[in-house]
Amino acid sequence: SASQDLDLEILETVMGQLDASRIRENLRELSREPHLSSTPRDEALVQLLLQRWQDEESGLDLAKTFKYEVLLSLPSEEQPNSVTVVGPTGDILFSCRQSEENLTGEQAGPDVVPPYAAYAPPGTPQGLLVYANQGSEDDFEELQTQGISLEGTIALTRYGGVGRGDKAVNAAKHGVAGVLVYTDPGDINDGQSLPNQTFPYSWGLPPSGVERGSYFQYFGDPLTPYLPANPSSFRLDPANATGFPPIPTQPIGFEDAKVLLCNLQGNSAPATWQGALGCEYRLGPGFRSDGDFPADSQVNVSVYNRLELRNASNVVGIIRGAVEPDRYVFYGNHRDSWVHGAVDPSSGTAVLLEVTRALGTLLKKGTWRPRRSVIFGSWGAEEFGLIGSTEFTEELFSKLQERTVAYINVDISVFANVSFRGQGTPPVQSVIFTAAKQISAPGHSNLSIYDNWIRYYNRSSPVYGVIPRMGTLAAGSDYAPFIHFLGISSMDLAYTYDRSKTSARIYPTYHTAFDTFGYVENFVDPGFSSHQAVARMVGNVLLRLSDSLFLPLNITDYSETLHSFLQAAQEDFGDLLQQNGISLEPLVTAVDKFQGAAADLDEQISELQKGTPDPLQVRMINDQLMLLERSFLNPQAFPEERYYSHVLWAPLTSSITTFPGLAIAYSTAMNTDPGSAAWAEVQRQLSIVVAAVEAAAATLRPVADL
Amino acid sequence: SASQDLDLEILETVMGQLDASRIRENLRELSREPHLSSTPRDEALVQLLLQRWQDEESGLDLAKTFKYEVLLSLPSEEQPNSVTVVGPTGDILFSCRQSEENLTGEQAGPDVVPPYAAYAPPGTPQGLLVYANQGSEDDFEELQTQGISLEGTIALTRYGGVGRGDKAVNAAKHGVAGVLVYTDPGDINDGQSLPNQTFPYSWGLPPSGVERGSYFQYFGDPLTPYLPANPSSFRLDPANATGFPPIPTQPIGFEDAKVLLCNLQGNSAPATWQGALGCEYRLGPGFRSDGDFPADSQVNVSVYNRLELRNASNVVGIIRGAVEPDRYVFYGNHRDSWVHGAVDPSSGTAVLLEVTRALGTLLKKGTWRPRRSVIFGSWGAEEFGLIGSTEFTEELFSKLQERTVAYINVDISVFANVSFRGQGTPPVQSVIFTAAKQISAPGHSNLSIYDNWIRYYNRSSPVYGVIPRMGTLAAGSDYAPFIHFLGISSMDLAYTYDRSKTSARIYPTYHTAFDTFGYVENFVDPGFSSHQAVARMVGNVLLRLSDSLFLPLNITDYSETLHSFLQAAQEDFGDLLQQNGISLEPLVTAVDKFQGAAADLDEQISELQKGTPDPLQVRMINDQLMLLERSFLNPQAFPEERYYSHVLWAPLTSSITTFPGLAIAYSTAMNTDPGSAAWAEVQRQLSIVVAAVEAAAATLRPVADL
Ligand SMILES: [Ca+2]
Ligand SMILES: [Ca+2]
Ligand SMILES: [Zn+2]
Ligand SMILES: [Zn+2]
Ligand SMILES: [Zn+2]
Ligand SMILES: [Zn+2]
Repeated sequence: SASQDLDLEILETVMGQLDASRIRENLRELSREPHLSSTPRDEALVQLLLQRWQDEESGLDLAKTFKYEVLLSLPSEEQPNSVTVVGPTGDILFSCRQSEENLTGEQAGPDVVPPYAAYAPPGTPQGLLVYANQGSEDDFEELQTQGISLEGTIALTRYGGVGRGDKAVNAAKHGVAGVLVYTDPGDINDGQSLPNQTFPYSWGLPPSGVERGSYFQYFGDPLTPYLPANPSSFRLDPANATGFPPIPTQPIGFEDAKVLLCNLQGNSAPATWQGALGCEYRLGPGFRSDGDFPADSQVNVSVYNRLELRNASNVVGIIRGAVEPDRYVFYGNHRDSWVHGAVDPSSGTAVLLEVTRALGTLLKKGTWRPRRSVIFGSWGAEEFGLIGSTEFTEELFSKLQERTVAYINVDISVFANVSFRGQGTPPVQSVIFTAAKQISAPGHSNLSIYDNWIRYYNRSSPVYGVIPRMGTLAAGSDYAPFIHFLGISSMDLAYTYDRSKTSARIYPTYHTAFDTFGYVENFVDPGFSSHQAVARMVGNVLLRLSDSLFLPLNITDYSETLHSFLQAAQEDFGDLLQQNGISLEPLVTAVDKFQGAAADLDEQISELQKGTPDPLQVRMINDQLMLLERSFLNPQAFPEERYYSHVLWAPLTSSITTFPGLAIAYSTAMNTDPGSAAWAEVQRQLSIVVAAVEAAAATLRPVADL
Repeated sequence: SASQDLDLEILETVMGQLDASRIRENLRELSREPHLSSTPRDEALVQLLLQRWQDEESGLDLAKTFKYEVLLSLPSEEQPNSVTVVGPTGDILFSCRQSEENLTGEQAGPDVVPPYAAYAPPGTPQGLLVYANQGSEDDFEELQTQGISLEGTIALTRYGGVGRGDKAVNAAKHGVAGVLVYTDPGDINDGQSLPNQTFPYSWGLPPSGVERGSYFQYFGDPLTPYLPANPSSFRLDPANATGFPPIPTQPIGFEDAKVLLCNLQGNSAPATWQGALGCEYRLGPGFRSDGDFPADSQVNVSVYNRLELRNASNVVGIIRGAVEPDRYVFYGNHRDSWVHGAVDPSSGTAVLLEVTRALGTLLKKGTWRPRRSVIFGSWGAEEFGLIGSTEFTEELFSKLQERTVAYINVDISVFANVSFRGQGTPPVQSVIFTAAKQISAPGHSNLSIYDNWIRYYNRSSPVYGVIPRMGTLAAGSDYAPFIHFLGISSMDLAYTYDRSKTSARIYPTYHTAFDTFGYVENFVDPGFSSHQAVARMVGNVLLRLSDSLFLPLNITDYSETLHSFLQAAQEDFGDLLQQNGISLEPLVTAVDKFQGAAADLDEQISELQKGTPDPLQVRMINDQLMLLERSFLNPQAFPEERYYSHVLWAPLTSSITTFPGLAIAYSTAMNTDPGSAAWAEVQRQLSIVVAAVEAAAATLRPVADL
């Protein structure tokens, strides 16, 4: 019936049925073999997904594949990439490993893709080695300041600080010819680096482990921006495509990095550049004469990566809504991995399969059908740049934008088994909190996920007092096209670390051949209770979104965000803006209007909830809640940033937590003269924000007000 | 109640109350004084609109103004623009009129703005005169071909063929220094040019009449593209704004044009360039020695136009919907005129006021409240480039795009009193036909508007046989931002000429000081019965859109359009596309999918109409109908074309009635080599069309299909 609402009994049933041992079995199967995008094993998992979602007793209403032809970058099978030290006479004095050490029997075999930097161009640069810290623009400027000539050098950088591709982009600007990237044990293993201190003896990264990854600067298929990559689609000539690293780049393990870095000559690197390889890091260029190599030895980086058009598949399934089938709750994760990908992404896919099994079973029994449609996505080619999900949103742009209530992403479901971690836009905070209060924390039968979470991650909210700290959404997984391109309220859910116990950038075997089932079972989540906790969180949030009569999207939580952004802008930018004749008053007015409209709508909802409201009245309000996020989109805001149109969350790097376009424009303008083009851009960005917040307030005001 | 449907009795009541004499009185008041945008009289009409729409007995629920600060272009009051013939010694031998002849006592006074070309830059070029026909690119090439050096010349052009601003853009490319534009009696008066053959003795344009107009190449406020022009908004520096004519330009009457043109020397102009001034048109450059001026006399064009920021107001009123207040039916027209503007736009505003009076009276009596909200707009600054309506759509982009069912425009309501004329996108054809069948044609008590219409304008439809011919929507009035920028199904309604009786480009006194109440009463629509007929058409269409349970938007009519576009592409482009390796097959598939989905949805609606469908089910289908037009938008399709994102209707000039982006790209590519960038752009445009048609089909398919 039109008044169908969330059924708490069904919710309890689902919570009870989500089973840790089934998740474990899912994970074992999913991570049994490497399943790099578009390989036979990836396609086999497509069939597995289809089979599960088409199961007569526990499947969905419908499941099918969406196939795209996309540009991947793969290492040559005939000519392996290599990194060598070449002596003055041309002799090869040292070669880095071309594959990880086979420690558990899983690191060898034809399906283990050798470490490489996807989309790095082929080439064989050779030159003196320099150490460039994290490869940021500041890092290269520091080297220049120290008088080091970078022209023709090979820059050794460590992961972290800036994005993968940024290291090569920055390096090339300074004349560097090739880039190496390694993972410092100080950044990933809390300093531990010995074989017996690392996997399989702990969760630490072994010395030969190498983080693979995409070095493409945008997301989506590189050849078909804004068009779905169907076989017949227009494609850019790869020579005209942008966003690829400009110079050959190759990742290596810290075992090899140590040989290179600890032999460098030159000035000592700054204190913050030092790591845990057990030697003093010097800047180069070139090796010291009393080390392992003759002083004028060079480093050769030979990259033979190839661009290839490959088929990538999404598997998409649906449970049709009983009352509002044209409203979609999305829940997705990518399927493709770099190697076995037990944590990334199979820990998420194992949860996805368990959630769909539990819901599918109730569906097929006839016990339950959601109010709204629920759509499940198993995305392809995420590791190359969120390609499968992005192409899907390009193909179905208007339909998804008009009908989607929220997008739930669970990529890595368990980084570690200590605390829940939620990221999302403000409207999803409250439904996550509600779910978290209802579920026991793994290992703490008397503590809710919420109460456990707040112990590890919290903040003081001017509205609520101390609450768990939610993170924001950048572009790290498939939520990116949903939030940044479509403007759909999105979230990413996981279990994670105790940050007081580890400073690891991410779980140590990330994107290496050591991310295996045994790793998960022994070190990440023995017993799979954190996996189960995440499954319950997802199931709970999903049911609330799909079944509640009124959408559980809390719009007043955006008021807090807007106020804090405004306050940061006033405090950090206010004086200089004023000196340049730019007033924040229109923004103050807009934020006030938003706050008033949000509070009024919230009160209207509370009033209606006391009675039995008219179905069309509920729909009208739900549309306001659903479409609020859309009102913050402006495709003209950041013309250089492919797909980014959300005025509040575009991940443009800024140290100030405020309106990103404004912050970036301000940082460019602050050292220019009054009247400069840069100050005009600040005013433009401010007007964009004002217009977006005004539009958001207009969306929330009574629909027949002018 | 949720099942509230169109009430045919109410419809008849409204039809009966729309009164010709009230429209006449409205027009008399509206056109009493010149009301150029942003002048005191324009503001007085804002108050008139507000007063009518806030009337306690016949007003709307709510009315208010939306004010913007926009860039207008106005002639200098101190330094009038002038066009003179200057003799070899610098003497002024002849001066064109600086204002129209005061024939009816209405053509003088401080509020009559002198003829000028809005947004033409100031400057005082002087040079030999050439005749350049309509000022198209082809026309200037023809002059070059004839060996005429255009550098530094003044080009005399006639209205028609290309847009106003295009004449100056094309001229400047060929080195022309200044442009004159006149209206040839052959193009406007069916050749008549004598004072006693023209107004006030007929509807013809008097010899001194000059068409004013905006020469801006885009629409919307020139300084705030994609942002509402609020006072605090970012504005481009006018020096960085684009779209203005590059060289001084001035319009003149044919009385003065005759003096210039009939004295030219040089080759005879081509036959198609000849007009009705009663002499042989020659090309120049310069005057013939046996004429009125010495042979080396030059023409001086002195333009002193100024750019000024001015306030422009929209008046917007609403009748709140009883059942679906969050669905909007829009009906609007501009308010500002060039001079008295009796026909343009007051004939439309007079109808608007009569329609709102009739509906408002029923509303205030409690007799009627529509199912959906109806919003009325009286737009400002249209004559300068659809500025008021465009700023409004920029301000409320997401809200309007999400909620608006259709936009009805009635600018000039009566061009002439012979036949109805409808323009619009395919989904609105059927509701216009339904209304037209229900209303008597003025002057034909036994003939419906439909039956009369089909006598004058018809076509043979493969689906329906012979039906009235609907026109398409370019960018001639305020529907442009609604259809091209927001993707809202739109229409423009009017009464018009018998094309077998006149070849006039438009009604003769268009944008002149002769467009007065007396002109309308004596020559356009004596008795105002055509005004009344348009009012009834609007009222009928509006009520059907606002009150019908199922939206009367016929989506299957898009199938016919897509098939005809496809067929034209196949016939005209097919061979050469194939030779360049570009296949139309994906488009054939997409169009077939669209047709199937549209037919299925149509059948589903028919089935549901037999019973009493669930309110949410009706809403779901109505959303599909409403949002279909949105699915054809692609803001990436035409990056150079401000606001144009509708892939099917973007008014990119092409002689083939097919997908406009494809046609333009094809015409550029057809003379290039295989593999050229131009052929790649053809493929890109084809992919954009395929993606749009596929997206449209996806919108129409069952909502829970994948
Ligand atoms: Ca794409
Ligand atoms: Ca604007
Ligand atoms: Zn992942
Ligand atoms: Zn990953
Ligand atoms: Zn008009
Ligand atoms: Zn006009």
